[in-house]
Amino acid sequence: MAKTVDLNTDCGESFGPWTMGQDADVLSIVSSANIACGFHAGDPDTLAETIALALEKGVSLGAHPGFDDKPGFGRRVIPMPPAAVKRMVAYQIGAAQALAALAGGKITHVKAHGALSNHGSVDRPTAEAIVDAVAGVDPALTLLAVATTELEKAARAKGVRVAAEIYADRMYDVDGNLRSRKHPDALIEDPNEAAERVLAMVEEGAIITRENTRVPTPIESICVHGDGPSAVAIARQVRKTLEDAGVTIAPFAR
Amino acid sequence: MAKTVDLNTDCGESFGPWTMGQDADVLSIVSSANIACGFHAGDPDTLAETIALALEKGVSLGAHPGFDDKPGFGRRVIPMPPAAVKRMVAYQIGAAQALAALAGGKITHVKAHGALSNHGSVDRPTAEAIVDAVAGVDPALTLLAVATTELEKAARAKGVRVAAEIYADRMYDVDGNLRSRKHPDALIEDPNEAAERVLAMVEEGAIITRENTRVPTPIESICVHGDGPSAVAIARQVRKTLEDAGVTIAPFAR
Amino acid sequence: MAKTVDLNTDCGESFGPWTMGQDADVLSIVSSANIACGFHAGDPDTLAETIALALEKGVSLGAHPGFDDKPGFGRRVIPMPPAAVKRMVAYQIGAAQALAALAGGKITHVKAHGALSNHGSVDRPTAEAIVDAVAGVDPALTLLAVATTELEKAARAKGVRVAAEIYADRMYDVDGNLRSRKHPDALIEDPNEAAERVLAMVEEGAIITRENTRVPTPIESICVHGDGPSAVAIARQVRKTLEDAGVTIAPFAR
Amino acid sequence: MAKTVDLNTDCGESFGPWTMGQDADVLSIVSSANIACGFHAGDPDTLAETIALALEKGVSLGAHPGFDDKPGFGRRVIPMPPAAVKRMVAYQIGAAQALAALAGGKITHVKAHGALSNHGSVDRPTAEAIVDAVAGVDPALTLLAVATTELEKAARAKGVRVAAEIYADRMYDVDGNLRSRKHPDALIEDPNEAAERVLAMVEEGAIITRENTRVPTPIESICVHGDGPSAVAIARQVRKTLEDAGVTIAPFAR
Repeated sequence: MAKTVDLNTDCGESFGPWTMGQDADVLSIVSSANIACGFHAGDPDTLAETIALALEKGVSLGAHPGFDDKPGFGRRVIPMPPAAVKRMVAYQIGAAQALAALAGGKITHVKAHGALSNHGSVDRPTAEAIVDAVAGVDPALTLLAVATTELEKAARAKGVRVAAEIYADRMYDVDGNLRSRKHPDALIEDPNEAAERVLAMVEEGAIITRENTRVPTPIESICVHGDGPSAVAIARQVRKTLEDAGVTIAPFAR
Repeated sequence: MAKTVDLNTDCGESFGPWTMGQDADVLSIVSSANIACGFHAGDPDTLAETIALALEKGVSLGAHPGFDDKPGFGRRVIPMPPAAVKRMVAYQIGAAQALAALAGGKITHVKAHGALSNHGSVDRPTAEAIVDAVAGVDPALTLLAVATTELEKAARAKGVRVAAEIYADRMYDVDGNLRSRKHPDALIEDPNEAAERVLAMVEEGAIITRENTRVPTPIESICVHGDGPSAVAIARQVRKTLEDAGVTIAPFAR
Repeated sequence: MAKTVDLNTDCGESFGPWTMGQDADVLSIVSSANIACGFHAGDPDTLAETIALALEKGVSLGAHPGFDDKPGFGRRVIPMPPAAVKRMVAYQIGAAQALAALAGGKITHVKAHGALSNHGSVDRPTAEAIVDAVAGVDPALTLLAVATTELEKAARAKGVRVAAEIYADRMYDVDGNLRSRKHPDALIEDPNEAAERVLAMVEEGAIITRENTRVPTPIESICVHGDGPSAVAIARQVRKTLEDAGVTIAPFAR
Repeated sequence: MAKTVDLNTDCGESFGPWTMGQDADVLSIVSSANIACGFHAGDPDTLAETIALALEKGVSLGAHPGFDDKPGFGRRVIPMPPAAVKRMVAYQIGAAQALAALAGGKITHVKAHGALSNHGSVDRPTAEAIVDAVAGVDPALTLLAVATTELEKAARAKGVRVAAEIYADRMYDVDGNLRSRKHPDALIEDPNEAAERVLAMVEEGAIITRENTRVPTPIESICVHGDGPSAVAIARQVRKTLEDAGVTIAPFAR
């Protein structure tokens, strides 16, 4: 049975004079790009340059909204009512759409960044605010959400297109949640180990936990990173291992 | 001969805990709203609230992009290459479009704010960058430009929809340009005088200068203000005088 | 027995083109000014203008640092490690000191704003970070802290000068804490009621609670507000009632 | 005759999650550090970390204020009246002083960054605003200014301590001004060439121009850079060549 899966990465996270990430390298590997929208990182110029790079590589365009917090890189929960979350997410999607339009492209998905994703993964009102923003701006958009989270569930409950993702370089707890970075075994740093785990999860249609149990879930996308040499090596190996096993890499959203 | 003209105003220029302008009052008078997009003023919540207010009043929605300069309220020219101006304007239009979509509305026009408008009025590359942003994001958008400026000319030269505006409360120099605020007679503060001048300009299809000469121009819109009691009084009198003379007030963009 | 107490107010909370508060009015009433330092509100120009106004009125100068969060006006807890809180507070004190020096004045106290004060009132590591910043920048500075809080206790434990304040327009719970604004009786809006309560608390050397019990505490200062006409009326009545009863109004820090 | 000269570098120009420059390397070479103050770059944490690094290396501490413009890295002239420039510079000096105090150190000099330095080098009112800020915050501070500029002249005219600097990696025009980066020969990239030129200028007490003429000037400091491997190589070679020739490297301010 032929399988297809997407590879996604966060990118466009430079800001003004500061650069971050190896966007050109990782955009040569993935099929979907989550592009920072100027709140936790990025700016109009970086958005434009990253969109141009993604279009050149044939990578599907996504908006990557986060909290309005550059000093904290969107990794801190800024307390906000759900209505404000919805507006903040919509604002960033729209900005990314406009820059995509300027380049002759189109934003086809949205993925929340950092603390916004983490908070929306466990807090249902925040999850619903994110989902409402995506559907309210353009019902054709797909939300890319961490598999098994409140964010995925809120989208399915509201009938909004959603793709579930797993992480190539992260260990999972027995309940199917990402293992906290506080633990020494939270990160998988060996490219081969990461790639073999990803292939097994895609083939089994389930998250494989630290305890070697299975949490069944749709897996439409795999998140890889582009900040650091081992991140790019993992991304490359994940793609190679999947393709060698006959899995097609293609964007979930078109 | 029945005439129709638009009344426009800048609004949505509050920010976080700070309020500015009498938006509810002036949006009851005008037909088009230029809503700040979060760079010189405004934020996602203010955008959403102002869009809701404009929709409630039946006022046409416009994006009002400016330089990224809240401390200077977008009134200082921030030196930028035209490509960066284009991206900065597109970003703000997109953000406003998304908030409008969330409210079931649609942005139909764009007007540059403060120093961006002033600089684009005299600097052709900046004017073309603004025009390219408007057309590149959505060719159905109309650019609202100060009559007789490079911004108006650049839009016409590129075949982009444009509406020319005059100011109700400003004196004009003999060349048809707005008289600099450095001069004591730059502002017209008497509501009746402002309204009579506007009516005469609309009827004659020309700017009436300080020297009482005429500079012929299309006049699709009249800019009024909402910050200060005399501003709202002028806006109200302009509308009344025009309507009493049989002029219909309606948005230029639909 | 002659008593002396300080009246303090938050001020300098305008930002760029946006104004907030009736600083000129309230600075004519109080003896100490807590001046925003550019993070939750204020900017170099507003700092300079507010310092000039306070010096003109003979009011003692204080720095009023907050979280770096203008959209939320410093009323949201931004998660930060204590070391970062210490640096953030020190930065703002230094900025205020420099603007004071430029005007020939001197910052003599520090009061934390909004969520920073609230969080430091209950979270001891945050309280200690604030105290360490004050003492580390200049041991001659006095910390102005809400009476009975962790912030006051941390300062006393570390031997840092501290003045305890009560609020003129707020009800207190039986434990001596400010009653949450969620309750309808949290705010005292009648100037006479506020003034009589303040006088009683100053005379008794105790917080008077909603249940009419007493929580003994030093009371070196009384916080009044300057945003809204009833706030200024309360401030004026508090001063008058105290003076009529023979209490001298004077800054705690000199 | 024994000579002494200072080597200075800009540093602390990281921001939040973004890093810039090789501060640890270049701070091992120079005698004075110009530390960004949070407006064009830097933040309270970066300030604290850079101050700690400089103190560890025995490097003299300076504040490096710039325009409030992170997206443009302080390289764009933001139009401001001189009074606002003075307050903006004072604010940043004070912030740096407070972070230095927290670390047990002391800011002993100030150097303007990027467009603020360039504008102050040719515009006398801006130069005087910078000088007034330095002297107004602390008369013991030394201003570090590009040799022969209005900034140096304004400081000398006002009796404010000033040190004149030359650039190790820049060509000079016949009038003694830095050759514009628009010209292909504006930058000197060979470490030996840069070092030999610096030694000659220090020995002759004059700027050596592209036309090989001399512009006599005091030379108290030499600016080197830390962003890029050739920058650090130049810095190292400049120090070595000077020391080999018997020149002592030491801070101008103590």
